[in-house]
Amino acid sequence: MTQISPEGLHSVFYPERVAVIGITDTPERVGYNILRSILYGGFAGKVYPVHPRHEQVLGCKVYKSLDDLPEPVDMAVICLNQYATVEAVESCGCSGVKGVVCNAGGYSETGEDGDELEKRLIAAAEKYGLPIIGPNTLGIINNDANFYSTFYPMRIPAGKVSVVSQSGGVGLTIINLALDEGIGINKFIGVGNCSNLDFADCLDYLENDDSTAVIGVYMEGTRDAGRFVRTAGRVARKKPVVVYKAGRIEGADNYTQTHTGSSAGSFKLYRDILHQHGIFTVNSPSELVAACKALELLPLPGGNRVGILTHTAGPGVVMIDHLAQAGCIIPPLHEETIARVKGIIGADNPPVVLKNPLDAAGLGFSRPTYGGLAEAMLADDHVDLLLAVYCLHETWELPAAELLDAYKKYKKPLIVNFIGNWLGCRADRDFLQSAGIPLFTAPEKTAVAAAALVHYGTKKLEGGASYA
Amino acid sequence: MTQISPEGLHSVFYPERVAVIGITDTPERVGYNILRSILYGGFAGKVYPVHPRHEQVLGCKVYKSLDDLPEPVDMAVICLNQYATVEAVESCGCSGVKGVVCNAGGYSETGEDGDELEKRLIAAAEKYGLPIIGPNTLGIINNDANFYSTFYPMRIPAGKVSVVSQSGGVGLTIINLALDEGIGINKFIGVGNCSNLDFADCLDYLENDDSTAVIGVYMEGTRDAGRFVRTAGRVARKKPVVVYKAGRIEGADNYTQTHTGSSAGSFKLYRDILHQHGIFTVNSPSELVAACKALELLPLPGGNRVGILTHTAGPGVVMIDHLAQAGCIIPPLHEETIARVKGIIGADNPPVVLKNPLDAAGLGFSRPTYGGLAEAMLADDHVDLLLAVYCLHETWELPAAELLDAYKKYKKPLIVNFIGNWLGCRADRDFLQSAGIPLFTAPEKTAVAAAALVHYGTKKLEGGASYA
Repeated sequence: MTQISPEGLHSVFYPERVAVIGITDTPERVGYNILRSILYGGFAGKVYPVHPRHEQVLGCKVYKSLDDLPEPVDMAVICLNQYATVEAVESCGCSGVKGVVCNAGGYSETGEDGDELEKRLIAAAEKYGLPIIGPNTLGIINNDANFYSTFYPMRIPAGKVSVVSQSGGVGLTIINLALDEGIGINKFIGVGNCSNLDFADCLDYLENDDSTAVIGVYMEGTRDAGRFVRTAGRVARKKPVVVYKAGRIEGADNYTQTHTGSSAGSFKLYRDILHQHGIFTVNSPSELVAACKALELLPLPGGNRVGILTHTAGPGVVMIDHLAQAGCIIPPLHEETIARVKGIIGADNPPVVLKNPLDAAGLGFSRPTYGGLAEAMLADDHVDLLLAVYCLHETWELPAAELLDAYKKYKKPLIVNFIGNWLGCRADRDFLQSAGIPLFTAPEKTAVAAAALVHYGTKKLEGGASYA
Repeated sequence: MTQISPEGLHSVFYPERVAVIGITDTPERVGYNILRSILYGGFAGKVYPVHPRHEQVLGCKVYKSLDDLPEPVDMAVICLNQYATVEAVESCGCSGVKGVVCNAGGYSETGEDGDELEKRLIAAAEKYGLPIIGPNTLGIINNDANFYSTFYPMRIPAGKVSVVSQSGGVGLTIINLALDEGIGINKFIGVGNCSNLDFADCLDYLENDDSTAVIGVYMEGTRDAGRFVRTAGRVARKKPVVVYKAGRIEGADNYTQTHTGSSAGSFKLYRDILHQHGIFTVNSPSELVAACKALELLPLPGGNRVGILTHTAGPGVVMIDHLAQAGCIIPPLHEETIARVKGIIGADNPPVVLKNPLDAAGLGFSRPTYGGLAEAMLADDHVDLLLAVYCLHETWELPAAELLDAYKKYKKPLIVNFIGNWLGCRADRDFLQSAGIPLFTAPEKTAVAAAALVHYGTKKLEGGASYA
């Protein structure tokens, strides 16, 4: 397989001129929706729809063929069927197109005939050194250039998390869970069948993409697992990589064979090797989003010692359950911290146990008190990272401003876990997250977020602990 | 320990006359908020606040003592400090009160002195056979009687799920996650320190509570694990019980010691024994809510064979990963079903693989087609339960009505997994859930919901598989 040059991929993500080959005027078809997505997303470059018979679609002039275009394009999105796609790739290569996205399915995921067809597709691309995104893909998004080239028109907040997904459906799930968690997406790459562009190529590209700070990967399988883990391990020394590897059991394994034409491989072996290479792994799309959110927003902690501040003990128990498995430590508080806490809650012998987790119970409800306790714990040099739990209540106001002040003062990572429903916590979440503090409403999400931070905060070149 | 009579507990949950002992006019205090919660929740009975010095609080006349009340009360909420609470329990017993909620902390969870105090509290109650909810508890909610007796004023939708929680914070988390999932709560019992009323007593009560259809339990530890698992196993033959047992690691175990005064015990042993008794267990508050939601809304499936219909393969892979661990089978489709599917998608040799999961890809987008495919799979006698995945799109409308029609026709359990964000799926979720079909937006939640249904659908007296 030809090595794909980063320049080719850069043209795919940051094109100035794009051809959409196989446009139709039928709103139910992929081609129509790709064009609609590009227009709706606010792409600032030029878009040239191509179809031999249409005149105009969605207000855009349609060109008969690539040869008819007034100028060369950087990349093409090919929305034709699986057979015509092969010919179109050949034409793209001839016309100097630098990269293509092939949406059609019907290749190696469908059996022997499809496998043969995919080989022809790859051969056509390789003649010209063309990187193919797909086939059998939802497409790509580059929010850094408002280039939304999937057949799901959308506009989503920009962020620093980029997602590489072997599945469009899981990719869309991740994007939607990210929206629900109030974070944005930088790039989305639906690798599909990974015909001549594998996960490792995407990671290579994202490693040097300055607008990407965190990389989330959903993977079923890859043909070159060795290259993937080596690449991921190398990239993870520069920016955090979070991997959700599916296909952990036989049934799913057989099924992935007909999904993207790759075997999911031995799940455990995969995960062990990922861990050896220092990659943080998770068990679900929700965990992937929680981990990426914390890694995007916060600086990494200096160690694995987690402080927990709460006024209700149980969520701390749940968090410790999940954290301890991930190699985190819940250290005793410094004596000075305990003295300081006593001063704040105004009791020499308070009716609460002064330890970590610090459960201030009813003494911790007032905003200034809670803020003071958060400061005391962040000031403790036994604590590398603080998790702060507070329950939404009609009388006591959420201490969002106090937590932000404490965070600014000590600059140690702080994750806030407000207990409240989606609507009740929305304003505070937006307030805190816009200032760089992630907010969750479920302790298991807070825990995976903390574990991800600790993982990359403590990881050395030889690898480290993992959550999954 | 005296066995607590169901009659005493019934008075706690369905009182006609309630005393709130230790009322204050300070909005930050527990007593004030208990009264506010009862009033705000719309309790139809009589509420008598008690305090020696106050005249009126929140528009209610305050009585000097229990003896001053114009009539006997059924239950009392005691919002005094840990010492005064002991005396108040004694007074309640003398006055013929049938059960009490003790909110104060400062008992066995704080060490030796507290342990001694808790013994005195229990002794005071046992003289009169009084059930104590708590101490060290958020309180209780009985939505079936609009009786909200916690210090977190709220009104939440009514439902058939009741929750027994050893932690107020985890209990509130579960309630809020349930709100986010669009389901209601029937009863909430914050068991706190389980002084003379343990999990088993609560399960005994809920077993015969007709308004409770599903029981969710958050547990750290119990003094009589044997009685708990036997009781839970018995109750689970009548209505589903979902247990989230925390304290799986050493650190959390030590911590729970100072939370509710109980040792979390050996996590694995606990879980194994729960499984032996046929209890479905989960690993997080989110999973608990997902399982309870499906068990509340749907009938149980006749077996463990799960059909998956989708137009995007990946979410099916994620689901199978989780389902196979839980003893579910993804059976091949019946030949007749495959013929029927071919007829619906209008192709003799469609470019999709006709198997289970059925990934109709681009052929499955239209609402009538998708609905037809759902009907075909529900009609298949190899399929006991159907999971239906569909991605929210601007062009293609969500096939909610078609799925409801299919469900009504075959009456087999159906879980819908729409891929979309919280806002985008809200209306469809409300539509489907009001008709008894649970909707999730994350495949791992759909999977745990399906696993819970299969568990209780296939469970025999001797136990069964479990998810966690």
